[in-house]
This record gives sequence, C-alpha cells and structure tokens, in this order.
Amino acid sequence: MKSRTIIKFLFICMTIAMASLQKSTAQESAKKVRIAKLEIYPEYLEAYKVALAEHAVAAVRSEPGVLALQAVYDKAHPTQVTVFEIYASEKAYQAHLQAPHFLKYKNGTLKMVKTLELIETEPIAIEIKPGLTAITSKK
Amino acid sequence: MKSRTIIKFLFICMTIAMASLQKSTAQESAKKVRIAKLEIYPEYLEAYKVALAEHAVAAVRSEPGVLALQAVYDKAHPTQVTVFEIYASEKAYQAHLQAPHFLKYKNGTLKMVKTLELIETEPIAIEIKPGLTAITSKK
Repeated sequence: MKSRTIIKFLFICMTIAMASLQKSTAQESAKKVRIAKLEIYPEYLEAYKVALAEHAVAAVRSEPGVLALQAVYDKAHPTQVTVFEIYASEKAYQAHLQAPHFLKYKNGTLKMVKTLELIETEPIAIEIKPGLTAITSKK
Repeated sequence: MKSRTIIKFLFICMTIAMASLQKSTAQESAKKVRIAKLEIYPEYLEAYKVALAEHAVAAVRSEPGVLALQAVYDKAHPTQVTVFEIYASEKAYQAHLQAPHFLKYKNGTLKMVKTLELIETEPIAIEIKPGLTAITSKK
C-alpha cells in the first residue's frame, strides 16, 4: 500500500510539473503582435518619418526578438501613421524598450507625436512571402 | 538645317519615350500596401476567422503578387479585425480579386461582415526579419 501511495504522489507531481512546463513554453513562444496608431503634428511629419524608418531598420536588423516593424501612413490623411509590430515574445518586447535605438527614437520624436494608441492583438493568420524583408519609402 | 531639325525632333521623341518608360516602371514596381478594418458579427466570428486564415494561406502561397496578408483581431474588442496587406503592384491586386480563393472567401463571408473600411497607405518602412513567413492562430 505504501509504495502505491508513493507512486500516486509521484504521478500527481509529474502531472503538475508537465502542466506548468507546457504553460511556460506556450507563454514564451507566444508572439506579441500589436498595432500602434499615431497622429503626427504636420510640421514634424517628414522628420518623424525619417526617425521612424531609421528606428525600424535598426530594431529589426539588430534585435533577435523584433520580428517585424511595418510602418505606413494613410494616403488620404498623411499625418495618420500605423505601425504593425511583431515581437518574438513579451520578453523580447521588454528588451526592445531598453535598446539604444528605441530610446533615441522615443525621446527624439516625443514632441512630434500628437496622439498614440496601442492596440494589443491576436493573430488570425500572418502570411508573408519568403524573401519579403524590406520595403523602403519611395521618398 | 534640315538634319538639325531632325536631330532636335528625335531628341524630343526620345525624351518623351524615356519619361513615359520611367513612369510606367515606377507604377509597375510600386507596392500596394493597404489596411482593411472589419467589424464582424459576433455570431460569425469563429467561422470568419477560419475563412480568413484559409484565404490568407492560399493567396500568399499561390499568388506571386500577393506578398503578405497579416490578419489580427483586437484582444479588447475581438470582433474588430485588421488585415495588413502587401501586393507587388496594383496589377497584382486586380489579379488577386479574380482568384478562386478570393471569390470563395468574399462570397462565403459576405453575411459575416458588418462593416469594412479600406485604407490606402504608403510605406514609411517595412522591415521583416528573414525567415518570418507564417504565424498561425493558437486556436
């Protein structure tokens, strides 16, 4: 009887350990996909675009956890900017917030940004053609 | 005098031809980047996500001119869906509208979509890590 109790106890321990391991793996592998919507003061628009492009290039090319930064402006309302952001994980995003290029961009553009809205999203399907890595502004 | 007139005429013709060629090349190579914002009827949300994911996979993997379809929903308002779309050109987009998988998706989801807003955009910087080609829903 004693050995059966020990086996039962070990089985329960293993089940709990496996469940928490699975949960931790899922959290670590969960991509963070977000949309940032910004309104830029018109007088700073060109300077803002330059700073944002420089930041996107630096972040995606130097940070392993920044998987994509895709910034566009609305043709009909050019001061409205949208950034579609993909990070490898929440941890990668937190590391990104400490990166020198992010701090330079953030501090350098503070006065240019009228409003900023951050929308946390969940992917339905992210499908990207192999080989599509960069599109720079035609300007 | 006659030969000088002919040379002048030929020079003008060449200038016009080169200008129109440049314009045509620029139009052909210009990527079409667009954001589609949709509100889905709650009762159709799960069916809509399945149809949209199926469509994104088919379009990006089978159509040379569909470079990326990135669909997400707002965590705070799950019926609000955003699709970030990149096509090789306007021509590629027009071809996409005739593709069987697009027509199947469009007709199959008509009753599920409450509102649809299409926002034409211009890229500031599209930076994607090499190797990032697909993220499927965790569901």
